[in-house]
Amino acid sequence: MKKFAVILAGCGVYDGAEIHEAVMTLYAIEKNGAAYEVFAPDIKQYHVKNHLTGQDMPEERNVLIESARIARGNIKSLTELDIRSFDAVIFPGGFGVAKNFCTFAFEGENCSVNPQIAGLIREVVSLRKPLGALCISPVLLVKLLGDVKVTIGQDAGTIQAIRNMGGQHVETTHGEVVIDEKHRIFTTPCYMLDASVTQIADGAINIVKKMLESM
Amino acid sequence: MKKFAVILAGCGVYDGAEIHEAVMTLYAIEKNGAAYEVFAPDIKQYHVKNHLTGQDMPEERNVLIESARIARGNIKSLTELDIRSFDAVIFPGGFGVAKNFCTFAFEGENCSVNPQIAGLIREVVSLRKPLGALCISPVLLVKLLGDVKVTIGQDAGTIQAIRNMGGQHVETTHGEVVIDEKHRIFTTPCYMLDASVTQIADGAINIVKKMLESM
Repeated sequence: MKKFAVILAGCGVYDGAEIHEAVMTLYAIEKNGAAYEVFAPDIKQYHVKNHLTGQDMPEERNVLIESARIARGNIKSLTELDIRSFDAVIFPGGFGVAKNFCTFAFEGENCSVNPQIAGLIREVVSLRKPLGALCISPVLLVKLLGDVKVTIGQDAGTIQAIRNMGGQHVETTHGEVVIDEKHRIFTTPCYMLDASVTQIADGAINIVKKMLESM
Repeated sequence: MKKFAVILAGCGVYDGAEIHEAVMTLYAIEKNGAAYEVFAPDIKQYHVKNHLTGQDMPEERNVLIESARIARGNIKSLTELDIRSFDAVIFPGGFGVAKNFCTFAFEGENCSVNPQIAGLIREVVSLRKPLGALCISPVLLVKLLGDVKVTIGQDAGTIQAIRNMGGQHVETTHGEVVIDEKHRIFTTPCYMLDASVTQIADGAINIVKKMLESM
């Protein structure tokens, strides 16, 4: 049975992992006959957003501890991930990717990437294992690898930033998957489009299916 | 298009709504061709659990604000729910139901139910609209209504408590739905069994389908 490492950036679209994308990624992996383990970096969240009002909350939360909510406690620190025991790695989206894993939400194309996340991505690519990225997560890959082909859907500002970082962008709509064969990178837009939860499920199922077909 | 009100008890299995059950309930509603709005009571959580370690955290969180993470901000306070605008009401599970909506987690059959939640359930039943409850949520209905037929799967202690509260329990396994025709109450065990995320999806899809068939 093929095994995916799923990397979470917290728990909630505005400061962590997008919850529907995260759950549908787990669902898609199991539905397609594969297995998963969940990981997150043991780091502080950039901030905590009140998801009802959109305002900042005067709190501190930890990415691993909050991600554990989505994983029902079945999660490990990213430092414990031995990529050689896995067949693939996948990143659901959410602002946590652009705030906790890198600074794209604030600095756009001039962002920096968390060294632990950067190390993981470089290792996955160098080992030629399939790497999946939903929603905003492809910006991580473009920042680190430069000339890769990805999709984040149709958002003009993000597409321009991807081009400025040296990436190639393919416009897509719901459920479509873009494959960069050279780097074995798979991307799908999910909530970077105005989407519903069944469209998120379709995107997650399609990207996982394509990744499994390539193995 | 039939419209469901989905009631959340926070965000995370150990102190709030179980996230997989909540997301799969939204998915099941849309997948079955219906629509939903999400509601939660604007009350303090009983406590905050570290989902990595299982320990209490010295924090306070609000059920509505945390539930908003699952709903991506598209959520209203339970006081704004006009049940006459909806065709059905459904409760995903999670310890939040047994800690924030009632005291079942601490007092078992002697529990009390939050008055806002109690009022909602009584109104739904009196209006003869279908009422769905996943996982541990059926205990709310038994506590309030007494002689109802429900399932929470196979957990002996919970089954005994249900009987002591005057309810009738039907043992079930993954994805099965028990229907109390008299009260139009639909229940399915989900994570009250040792389950996987695809089994949760099956349970959510089946219960929503049965509720829609009854309308």
